[in-house]
Amino acid sequence: MNVTVWNEFFEERKYPSVSSVYPDGLHTVLRQALAEQLGPGTGVRVALQEEPEHGLGQDVLDDTDVLLWWGHLKQDEVSDEVVERVRRRVLDGMGLLILHSAIESKVAKALLGTSCRITGWRHGDSELLWTILPGHEIVAGVPNPVVIPHGEMYGEPLDIPAPDELVFISSYEGGEVLRSGCAWHRGRGRVFFFAPGHEEAPIYFQPEIRRVLANAVRWAAPPAQPQPRLTRQGEWPAKWWVPA
Amino acid sequence: MNVTVWNEFFEERKYPSVSSVYPDGLHTVLRQALAEQLGPGTGVRVALQEEPEHGLGQDVLDDTDVLLWWGHLKQDEVSDEVVERVRRRVLDGMGLLILHSAIESKVAKALLGTSCRITGWRHGDSELLWTILPGHEIVAGVPNPVVIPHGEMYGEPLDIPAPDELVFISSYEGGEVLRSGCAWHRGRGRVFFFAPGHEEAPIYFQPEIRRVLANAVRWAAPPAQPQPRLTRQGEWPAKWWVPA
Amino acid sequence: MNVTVWNEFFEERKYPSVSSVYPDGLHTVLRQALAEQLGPGTGVRVALQEEPEHGLGQDVLDDTDVLLWWGHLKQDEVSDEVVERVRRRVLDGMGLLILHSAIESKVAKALLGTSCRITGWRHGDSELLWTILPGHEIVAGVPNPVVIPHGEMYGEPLDIPAPDELVFISSYEGGEVLRSGCAWHRGRGRVFFFAPGHEEAPIYFQPEIRRVLANAVRWAAPPAQPQPRLTRQGEWPAKWWVPA
Amino acid sequence: MNVTVWNEFFEERKYPSVSSVYPDGLHTVLRQALAEQLGPGTGVRVALQEEPEHGLGQDVLDDTDVLLWWGHLKQDEVSDEVVERVRRRVLDGMGLLILHSAIESKVAKALLGTSCRITGWRHGDSELLWTILPGHEIVAGVPNPVVIPHGEMYGEPLDIPAPDELVFISSYEGGEVLRSGCAWHRGRGRVFFFAPGHEEAPIYFQPEIRRVLANAVRWAAPPAQPQPRLTRQGEWPAKWWVPA
Repeated sequence: MNVTVWNEFFEERKYPSVSSVYPDGLHTVLRQALAEQLGPGTGVRVALQEEPEHGLGQDVLDDTDVLLWWGHLKQDEVSDEVVERVRRRVLDGMGLLILHSAIESKVAKALLGTSCRITGWRHGDSELLWTILPGHEIVAGVPNPVVIPHGEMYGEPLDIPAPDELVFISSYEGGEVLRSGCAWHRGRGRVFFFAPGHEEAPIYFQPEIRRVLANAVRWAAPPAQPQPRLTRQGEWPAKWWVPA
Repeated sequence: MNVTVWNEFFEERKYPSVSSVYPDGLHTVLRQALAEQLGPGTGVRVALQEEPEHGLGQDVLDDTDVLLWWGHLKQDEVSDEVVERVRRRVLDGMGLLILHSAIESKVAKALLGTSCRITGWRHGDSELLWTILPGHEIVAGVPNPVVIPHGEMYGEPLDIPAPDELVFISSYEGGEVLRSGCAWHRGRGRVFFFAPGHEEAPIYFQPEIRRVLANAVRWAAPPAQPQPRLTRQGEWPAKWWVPA
Repeated sequence: MNVTVWNEFFEERKYPSVSSVYPDGLHTVLRQALAEQLGPGTGVRVALQEEPEHGLGQDVLDDTDVLLWWGHLKQDEVSDEVVERVRRRVLDGMGLLILHSAIESKVAKALLGTSCRITGWRHGDSELLWTILPGHEIVAGVPNPVVIPHGEMYGEPLDIPAPDELVFISSYEGGEVLRSGCAWHRGRGRVFFFAPGHEEAPIYFQPEIRRVLANAVRWAAPPAQPQPRLTRQGEWPAKWWVPA
Repeated sequence: MNVTVWNEFFEERKYPSVSSVYPDGLHTVLRQALAEQLGPGTGVRVALQEEPEHGLGQDVLDDTDVLLWWGHLKQDEVSDEVVERVRRRVLDGMGLLILHSAIESKVAKALLGTSCRITGWRHGDSELLWTILPGHEIVAGVPNPVVIPHGEMYGEPLDIPAPDELVFISSYEGGEVLRSGCAWHRGRGRVFFFAPGHEEAPIYFQPEIRRVLANAVRWAAPPAQPQPRLTRQGEWPAKWWVPA
């Protein structure tokens, strides 16, 4: 399995409150987390927004089973062409993990169709991450609740389509709630939004969070032998036409 | 439209902490709330557990468009025959509102198929009721969030099927969360679970809560002209058999 | 209630096979159908692709409760600006009916996030439209199945998100099937895809089909008194920020 | 992984039309199919309705990861005690495959809450089994459509809750349709209804059908390391109570 961690990699070089937590970038910690959790059979590469084509040429995407996406302040600068390329690749079977503020990324909005806007936010809150589907593979081996000492409140209504599977709901210090773990099928691919991941706190160092990420990668990966495409025109007894 | 409010009516006569809030029974306040909200075109009757057949003879159910169900300590004493009668009537088109602790009623468990158990509870907590589906008719005219000063915490995981529509999520003082407004289709009928309603607090006197209840009754009511039953055996071009 | 019927209005003036069925355009028949079914309390206007801004200026959309959308061969020529305007208006509460080939419209793809591609098609087939949710308001008074003598086969897999409510499934002469009545919540709005509507057959003259369309308009219309927006920054006890 | 195949085993000894296809019982062929598909790491045992406790003592269920259930004419003779035992075991994490006519079994009705009735049936029809979710693990390596030369039509509306994942829709010779592959989460367990399996045709000998069954067993099996139960009373900062 091949995993690609995509990162905006902006705040880690600009703001001390972020660089002090992720001096080598969020992507480095995410890569380490997945390597540690998924073992040597999984290749984990990194792609950055600053690279040509944001590091996501067609060849990279074609060789990616699951893509993790972290973005925030520079999301509007992601090229529409790359967004469309990612969207098509997901519909073709690639898994996608949308992390934290990336719920408002162009990629998320393109695949989900809604504004993906939160109603409000607040920095620093502790968060309780409650499991809703205790038999789901994404929570295997994960305690309930997961306690995040400091993170960021995101408030409902979050403008997303109803998830096909609602895995987590979080609460924050002010009593706000969020559907913080949401799974969707899109085309042949799978999408998982996971809210924790505020850049000023070492959330991706927490073992429980790493376990969720690894579980979600496994869940989102396409099957080894996917379903073949439908038998086409001329072969089916009743003649028909297929879209161009 | 005819609505029936069903109540266990036990704690209101036994515990001062309850009778001080609902001296004439929860059902009386629920009936008043619905009459006030739904107007003279809607008939609201009451049925009590202590009555013969728990007040739910077949004729009463056949004449009921939406049934509200409140039960708690005496739920195991409800007769299986009446439970089955209610279940069949819901599948045949009647709406059902499952209120508060009635999520663990026999009727709820029969229609939902799961244990309907909460993971924990605590009396007295304030509750914030957050809207998840702001375009749903059940939240029309309802503020977001609704603040309940004192109620009862119910904790996830709540063992219910994923709702067809998740309308509300609540948080409580200890940071717990609950899917507190859940809508399902069952057969030709509709079921709505609404968590607020702890018997020691005047929750059913709150205008916002009354509005939710009235909206939910309207949502759960069957259409004036429902779909006719499927054309049957002998009439359909390809011969077939229908279940006995 | 105000309804706007939007039509591409191309084939009705170009192809005899279409103009013979809809000499004044599909929109004229749809407007008549809705006026007949919904009565004088509902205003039904028409907007055409050839008009400035495709007939969908912001003022028209702001005054529209439910928009019907029929497009086919000229869908790629719809302006992205109008598509985005429609999308935002749906998220803000407007209902949208996506008719027949408009499942591949830009508007549908923008709101659903997937390719919305059918796997194959065939003209002329008879279609059986089976009800899956017999208690849904969209099938009130509608027979089961509805028989469409001549229409168009659309084949699964249809690349759409799983509907929040699956109302109809169709079968065709070659044994193909389609999720032909699909309902979604999107933001504060509602979307309904209804597959029947091939332009070479008088499907929108069928009484059962007209009944479905009218029911769907009623279902998709926003509530008379929608939920107010969330109480904002500075008013909520715990200070927070709202998106710009 | 341990799989148990449960069979009514009645018609195979009574009716020549069935014994000619399954002389040693449906369970024997199902067991062979799973052993062949899942390999030596999976133990497959058989339990029969005629055995004490229907072959499903608590020890057997506790040692079962996934249970397959085939029943038809004798479904009403299954003891309520065993039904309740199976139901609890599913809620606790066991997978369940409901095969063909077992959709009307007591076990299915107990877990799904509805009547589970089909609207009509017809013997002998060919069936086309269409994939709706081409990225789902249950269709991995399975062609689309699967053609079943002779089987049994089951007609919609089928009175089941909306599936959490709709994997297959079938069509039959008379133009009828059925949601023929339906997946649900129930408690910590998973349930999959798979419609093909009429006892008078060698459907469970078809390689594509065997592949679906094996995929479904893998999908329904609980994770190797499931989520631990919630931290309990006295350990959580805010004191609470857990159900008895």
